[in-house]
Amino acid sequence: MSLIVVGSVALDSVETPTEKREDVLGGSAVYFSYAASFFTTVRLAGVVGEDWPAEHTELLESRGIDTTGLQVVSGGKTFRWRGKYMKDMNDRETLDLQLNVLADFDPLLPESYRHCKYLFLANGSPTHQLKTLDQCQGARLVVADTMDFYIRSERNGLLELLKRVDGLVLNDSEAKLLTDDDNLVRAGNIVRGMGPKFVVIKKGEHGAIFFGENETYVLPAFPTPDVVDPTGAGDSFAGGMMGYLAERDCFDPKTLKEALAYGTLTASFTVEDFSLDRLQAIERKDLDRRMEEYRKMLSF
Amino acid sequence: MSLIVVGSVALDSVETPTEKREDVLGGSAVYFSYAASFFTTVRLAGVVGEDWPAEHTELLESRGIDTTGLQVVSGGKTFRWRGKYMKDMNDRETLDLQLNVLADFDPLLPESYRHCKYLFLANGSPTHQLKTLDQCQGARLVVADTMDFYIRSERNGLLELLKRVDGLVLNDSEAKLLTDDDNLVRAGNIVRGMGPKFVVIKKGEHGAIFFGENETYVLPAFPTPDVVDPTGAGDSFAGGMMGYLAERDCFDPKTLKEALAYGTLTASFTVEDFSLDRLQAIERKDLDRRMEEYRKMLSF
Repeated sequence: MSLIVVGSVALDSVETPTEKREDVLGGSAVYFSYAASFFTTVRLAGVVGEDWPAEHTELLESRGIDTTGLQVVSGGKTFRWRGKYMKDMNDRETLDLQLNVLADFDPLLPESYRHCKYLFLANGSPTHQLKTLDQCQGARLVVADTMDFYIRSERNGLLELLKRVDGLVLNDSEAKLLTDDDNLVRAGNIVRGMGPKFVVIKKGEHGAIFFGENETYVLPAFPTPDVVDPTGAGDSFAGGMMGYLAERDCFDPKTLKEALAYGTLTASFTVEDFSLDRLQAIERKDLDRRMEEYRKMLSF
Repeated sequence: MSLIVVGSVALDSVETPTEKREDVLGGSAVYFSYAASFFTTVRLAGVVGEDWPAEHTELLESRGIDTTGLQVVSGGKTFRWRGKYMKDMNDRETLDLQLNVLADFDPLLPESYRHCKYLFLANGSPTHQLKTLDQCQGARLVVADTMDFYIRSERNGLLELLKRVDGLVLNDSEAKLLTDDDNLVRAGNIVRGMGPKFVVIKKGEHGAIFFGENETYVLPAFPTPDVVDPTGAGDSFAGGMMGYLAERDCFDPKTLKEALAYGTLTASFTVEDFSLDRLQAIERKDLDRRMEEYRKMLSF
């Protein structure tokens, strides 16, 4: 089923305690769409500058990702993020952020995108997210992400968005910030009270908590000793989750839970190398194999 | 089956962001034995002073906990801990610590304790833990806890202990400190290489990771919105775990996993009120009911 993602497309420079990478492929829409491409076809919308390497677009297209909605701004520069991970790989510091072409991004979707059934509004300004949503009135399932910056700077827009989406995924510190409550179980329920039918709080290496109408549950992360670069884990989680829902064309509670598990496992591969390197090295059957291990891990 | 715990018996003063309690019943051996008493009979060894309220001993005995090994020092004062929890209830600060009678504690076990099959060496000096172990040569399963203070101050004694125990439970920051590795999956395996057949890393609100000979798995905490006081959660976890193993008189991988789940759930009740208040309000059937919810939560 058609799945659309609108979000950032970036060149990332990442420093970990042991290694460095310069200007590697990144951005929320990129991680999301690559992760989702294990499950379904994806249409990506975003913006890049003239400096965007053609091979990145080719890579995405080789995965069946439709890049018709990827605007290329002549004379513009691609969004750049530079960050550094601390020793424990959980905390990170943004060393530099250049919005570049993202600053003036107008999320105008191609006509072919507008009849999508599944829509993911990746991290971005609530104003942009709402504008995107207006173009996809018929979507059956709309899920959004957000971040601390917009919770602080565009709270009203975000609250308006929350009334119009089916689901929200956000990380633990963002949930605490949005609700001013430090208990994640309470925080998740408060966010659900703001509008979304379901809320997923991502806890990085500690997994995710789901809040639905009739159930709250926690799924742990898959324990991996090879955390090389956590960048994009949250977007890969969302991509795996939405990709699976679109593949199954269903989002009842049972399918949602399986989707959360697939999101968890997709993210567990992403962190095992820089950029999309690890995801490029695996196939769907590797995800399914890890799913079997994960199910076994959680049964007793 | 006979289960022995040797550890601290304390009067705790606890401050949370919203409430305060003075001189309430606490200590690792107390939380452990009360938690284990849902599953089996427990023999407790520890030390208190003359100021120890008789009703605390009566409470423990009412649960079938054998307190023959609880030494009462005439003229002595009971170990006291005073702590304060921060807003998010995860971080805490020790405001005052008075070892009192614990400073000269000699863990000499009553004869009736020495033929135990299950032994838990709660948090304490490795010298004391080794001395206790020497008195229970026939124990079939010996599990220890430790803490940052002893990892720093008695590392050699701790390493000697690790060669002689079957299992170690410790929390995430302690595992990182002991191994100088910030990846918990690697850290757990390194600790296992130091001797224990299995290692459990407790992650508080994020659950626990198990490292055994043939498997590594994560069990999440049970999501509770009512975290009132986290004191004793780790000891209740160990008590629920060891209590279940002693009840089943088995510690094969399958039973160990069930035991970890029961430990998780016992701890989830402990944090819902101060001291032992919540555990006093529940029965075994409440644990079993939560176990059903927990199994359902983890299956998909």
